[in-house]
Amino acid sequence: MPDFTDRLRPSQPDGPTTLARERERSSVSVNELAQHLLSADGFLERQARVLPVLQREPLFSKEKQQNLSRPERFKLGLARAKLLRRLADKHAWSTVDYKMAEYLVDDVSPYLLQMEMFLTTIREQASEEQRAYWQPLIESWKIYGAYAQTELGHGSNVRGLELEARWDSRTKEFVLHSPTLTASKWWNGSLGRLANHAIVVAQLLLPEPGSPDKFVSHGPHPFIVQVRDMKTHQPLNGVVIGDIGPKYGYITMDNAYMLFENFRIPHSAMLSRYSSVNPDTGIYTKPEQPALVYGSLTYVRANIVHHARLVLARAVTVAVRYTAIRRQFKDRDGDKKGLEMAVLDYPTVQIRIMPLLATTFALHYTGLAMRAVYENTRNEVEQGNFRTLAHMHSMSSGLKSLCTMLAADGVETCRRALGGHGFGGGSGLIQLNNDYLSKPTVEGDNWMITQQVAAYLIKKMTAAAESSNTAAADETDARFKEFVRARSSANSRPAQYNVLENDQAIVKSFEHRATALAYDAYEQRILKKKNWNELLIQLHKLSRAQSQSILVSTFFEALSTDKNLSGSTKTVMWNLYRLFALYTMENEGFESRKVFRCNAVSQADLSCLPARVQDLMARIRPHAVNLVDSWKIPDYLLDSALGRYDGRVYEDLYNRAHRLNPLNKITFNPNYWEEEIVKGSGDNGSTILSKL
Amino acid sequence: MPDFTDRLRPSQPDGPTTLARERERSSVSVNELAQHLLSADGFLERQARVLPVLQREPLFSKEKQQNLSRPERFKLGLARAKLLRRLADKHAWSTVDYKMAEYLVDDVSPYLLQMEMFLTTIREQASEEQRAYWQPLIESWKIYGAYAQTELGHGSNVRGLELEARWDSRTKEFVLHSPTLTASKWWNGSLGRLANHAIVVAQLLLPEPGSPDKFVSHGPHPFIVQVRDMKTHQPLNGVVIGDIGPKYGYITMDNAYMLFENFRIPHSAMLSRYSSVNPDTGIYTKPEQPALVYGSLTYVRANIVHHARLVLARAVTVAVRYTAIRRQFKDRDGDKKGLEMAVLDYPTVQIRIMPLLATTFALHYTGLAMRAVYENTRNEVEQGNFRTLAHMHSMSSGLKSLCTMLAADGVETCRRALGGHGFGGGSGLIQLNNDYLSKPTVEGDNWMITQQVAAYLIKKMTAAAESSNTAAADETDARFKEFVRARSSANSRPAQYNVLENDQAIVKSFEHRATALAYDAYEQRILKKKNWNELLIQLHKLSRAQSQSILVSTFFEALSTDKNLSGSTKTVMWNLYRLFALYTMENEGFESRKVFRCNAVSQADLSCLPARVQDLMARIRPHAVNLVDSWKIPDYLLDSALGRYDGRVYEDLYNRAHRLNPLNKITFNPNYWEEEIVKGSGDNGSTILSKL
Repeated sequence: MPDFTDRLRPSQPDGPTTLARERERSSVSVNELAQHLLSADGFLERQARVLPVLQREPLFSKEKQQNLSRPERFKLGLARAKLLRRLADKHAWSTVDYKMAEYLVDDVSPYLLQMEMFLTTIREQASEEQRAYWQPLIESWKIYGAYAQTELGHGSNVRGLELEARWDSRTKEFVLHSPTLTASKWWNGSLGRLANHAIVVAQLLLPEPGSPDKFVSHGPHPFIVQVRDMKTHQPLNGVVIGDIGPKYGYITMDNAYMLFENFRIPHSAMLSRYSSVNPDTGIYTKPEQPALVYGSLTYVRANIVHHARLVLARAVTVAVRYTAIRRQFKDRDGDKKGLEMAVLDYPTVQIRIMPLLATTFALHYTGLAMRAVYENTRNEVEQGNFRTLAHMHSMSSGLKSLCTMLAADGVETCRRALGGHGFGGGSGLIQLNNDYLSKPTVEGDNWMITQQVAAYLIKKMTAAAESSNTAAADETDARFKEFVRARSSANSRPAQYNVLENDQAIVKSFEHRATALAYDAYEQRILKKKNWNELLIQLHKLSRAQSQSILVSTFFEALSTDKNLSGSTKTVMWNLYRLFALYTMENEGFESRKVFRCNAVSQADLSCLPARVQDLMARIRPHAVNLVDSWKIPDYLLDSALGRYDGRVYEDLYNRAHRLNPLNKITFNPNYWEEEIVKGSGDNGSTILSKL
Repeated sequence: MPDFTDRLRPSQPDGPTTLARERERSSVSVNELAQHLLSADGFLERQARVLPVLQREPLFSKEKQQNLSRPERFKLGLARAKLLRRLADKHAWSTVDYKMAEYLVDDVSPYLLQMEMFLTTIREQASEEQRAYWQPLIESWKIYGAYAQTELGHGSNVRGLELEARWDSRTKEFVLHSPTLTASKWWNGSLGRLANHAIVVAQLLLPEPGSPDKFVSHGPHPFIVQVRDMKTHQPLNGVVIGDIGPKYGYITMDNAYMLFENFRIPHSAMLSRYSSVNPDTGIYTKPEQPALVYGSLTYVRANIVHHARLVLARAVTVAVRYTAIRRQFKDRDGDKKGLEMAVLDYPTVQIRIMPLLATTFALHYTGLAMRAVYENTRNEVEQGNFRTLAHMHSMSSGLKSLCTMLAADGVETCRRALGGHGFGGGSGLIQLNNDYLSKPTVEGDNWMITQQVAAYLIKKMTAAAESSNTAAADETDARFKEFVRARSSANSRPAQYNVLENDQAIVKSFEHRATALAYDAYEQRILKKKNWNELLIQLHKLSRAQSQSILVSTFFEALSTDKNLSGSTKTVMWNLYRLFALYTMENEGFESRKVFRCNAVSQADLSCLPARVQDLMARIRPHAVNLVDSWKIPDYLLDSALGRYDGRVYEDLYNRAHRLNPLNKITFNPNYWEEEIVKGSGDNGSTILSKL
């Protein structure tokens, strides 16, 4: 309905004017940087190709979805997932094309598990015969599958799972049974309402040889199980399944609970590539190579690390563009007749956003490095070489923990830096925050998995300390041995690195710190035999220091070896590297007394960090808009009034409120002594009461 | 529908057993501590009285509300707000009773503004005559009101508001007019769908004496304006109003946008207790006492500070109870046949939850102190004494910033410490998080308002430096003067405080640090004449240090002067004080090099902090459950499967999923090549598409 507000414009200078000026004054070449970041694996080409297909489909419109209920939102999520699959067929999308489409649509797909954990597990854990049977059914989508491992009572400790798969030697079947409520499967995606099959992980119970009534657990094993009727889509007899209900995010995912009561499955259900049960004797065959840790979990962690950059880049894009446009207060010491200042020109806003802008690039290079290490290790392992497996596993655990924390906290820091409008629905950060906050917990809790890094480093340090004069086996070993030698040499003093003047010295100082903390941990655990749990906080800090060191060194390496970025863009990238590293150093004060001060960095340099950080932010500031533009995040994905490319912030906020908000179609009865809610409806509130 | 899962129980030891043991082994007296904390103003008695009234009403059931859409959720919020008002009439509730009921129902009431900002502004800013007219209308709820100040383009900078109130001397009316889109009112609670009147803040434009066509702004002024028709409830001609749409939280609040087109209001609309316009001459009368800052804003900030403890206590209650029950992994160095460890026994879990448990008490005592200072100052001001006004304003600004940050970040830290179930809907922390995350921004952005603290302290330090040998005007002045004298005395070295052995020395060290930072700021700004904006980060740190000092000293004072807590409970409370203070000290490393190390605390003591913190956590751990019990937060408010008093965590999670989740009533069609979403419905997705 037209009204006088249709004619109104925002006060000047408006968003488009401001962003045009910002883009003009920066010497950073957006396209050059975008190519540098995102062209290698065809990302940019793919995005440009897939996006218009999605934009043509009204079902993918994000404009009003925040108003829907959970059941409606799930229906929408399923409708979109179906459409996406049909589009994939129609356009003959590759898997990466399809994943690009899922990324842009930005709903967690209720079909997610089918081609991921379900298919992967069949591929990796099924025997040849099982694979030949199941894989075509999955790939043709004749069956829908999920992966049911986590239970109500156990997540991290997989060995503690309670669901039983007891071998019945009489009928040659396994009997799935949930002995307790806590044995209920829980969290299993795509299973709550959709899947009809699942990989079910259960304790394998076999009769003890000689005493057939006594059962012994051989630990958790995977079984493939049909759980719903293919016609009625109802759970089979002896199975209870459902969706666990609303969550913090993942509104379009049907995470499941599932219990079994003496539910019989055939011998062929047990995935038997690595271990098996002889159907005649009931005798168990162990896997030959128990350390198959490089499998899907590490793969998933490596992907999470690689993805973190795009999550944070989204939030930083919104924050930079909006705070460049938003003006508030005139300069207290400046011209009283001048414009109000852009919020991004306040150091208290910069200190929250600019280090995160730098972090997007740090995450990017580390994500690439993580992927490369994963691919190399995988190739080596397939050739029977397990040399780098432990390193890769440690690296993926530490980086998963640190990078998801940086991204998750970074999104919220950006949101708060947006002021009031950051609390509104136009930020584009609400669903991002809600969904991404799963990441610090899933695939290994961020605090728990740092133990895996520490255990690896203590082992490495133990080896280095035991033979510090032999040839180094790898980079870490070389660093550790050098440290041990220097430590035991009477007159050697560890170098102090000139972090303010030398970019490589920054890398060295971070490595030195991680090494010193690794030595501390080794000393406590191995030499002093301290209790592991007593050391956990220290071990967590060690993992964090090690992972920060990787972020800093891969950033440095990437810029040092790059040959394509032109002078001006390169200069800004080096400043971003310095900002990321020195800001991190400044904010790691909790251990600075122990390491930075005593050894790696001088007291004088440490005292200069706050001023240097502020100076670097001021140097980067003119390029902030071009830097976020280089991430090439389309408006369609951002779904943000505050962050849109053209800067029409206030027009969009107003449009969402005035034209798109369904609540404004309802007239309410404000009188408290009348029970009627919607004016003129006569409904005394019983409709809403019935939904409780 | 009954099924086999009805008979299942969680694995042992279950939640009730575990919590019973936890409660038994602690010597903290829950009732004694609860009385100490919450009996003074009748809080406990009131809670016990109001709660059963609410529990009898099905409309207040929280069980399924997470499944509702925004429009449904708003209808429910309104239905509840109406019922609450009717209950208030029926039970003759006082205002505090009514507020207790709102707190327990835990929906932001769409009636919130009526008795708060709407009535308060009339009381404080209206002339006697205006008050006599409007107050009865408001108190009898014949009109519904809101407070419309913030605009789309301006929040913090109130002077930058764009809405105009132009005096028409011909008709003796004001003309409200929104010249731009950014002049739209925005965020104004209770106005989007409900209020029919509003206090509207607009630039007062008056003709320049002598040139009647030239208008001059006299700054923002409040007007009372009818904005909706009393019969049809539609906006009046020339007014556009609506709800701004979904937000991060506050789902039951109709935050508004509102614009005016040459909308005429009578001369009597301008609230004229302090300033007025002569209707005959158009001449403006200024307020006599412009610094009326003690008014509603400071009141609201003081309330936010006071409330923070209950917000954090809710999250900590959930976190402590659940992590005491949740078991995961056996002790790596312990008995392999023993039980898995309670998650709360891991130091990496303790380091996240226990300092926050200590923080609840720190926030409590500071909240009481803030209230006392507010009351005293208000009394003094009403007697014409403005001596402590600036102190109170500074204190409320700094504490609002720090305390809301501690509570908001603390809720999320607790949520993540819950592991996977912290991401589920049974945590009880989702809506709490969503709603509370408004607090770091509203009523003065947490980063912006710290300038007010810094400005105050620089002023105080300037005065102290100028006459350091005269008698001290107040406590701060005494501390500052002492610092200045010590600084200029050639052979004096600032004391090093023995923070590990002496509880009062901790207070001194925090005060010393805040004082030293205040002196730094004074030096930079006053002596070196540095640009204000260049100093903002430093000024923020100063405010934070000052507020931390207040938290530490009020905690110390409260325990020192208390005469009621018995020996054992008191001992634990002292440990909580130490934990809060030393943990804060350890984590303030970012300035430790500058202050703690050089002056206030010895290097040796600082190095001991991590071990001391871990030791304190271990001492407090056995009392954790009793300590959170002492906050007496009813299950009804917690609405948390994880945090319920009886510990039936898994039973409740399962109940919510299996029996209360409406999604499980729907059977879906999983085939992607069929457009049908709900199985058997035949609907090809057009219903859900129509809602986009």
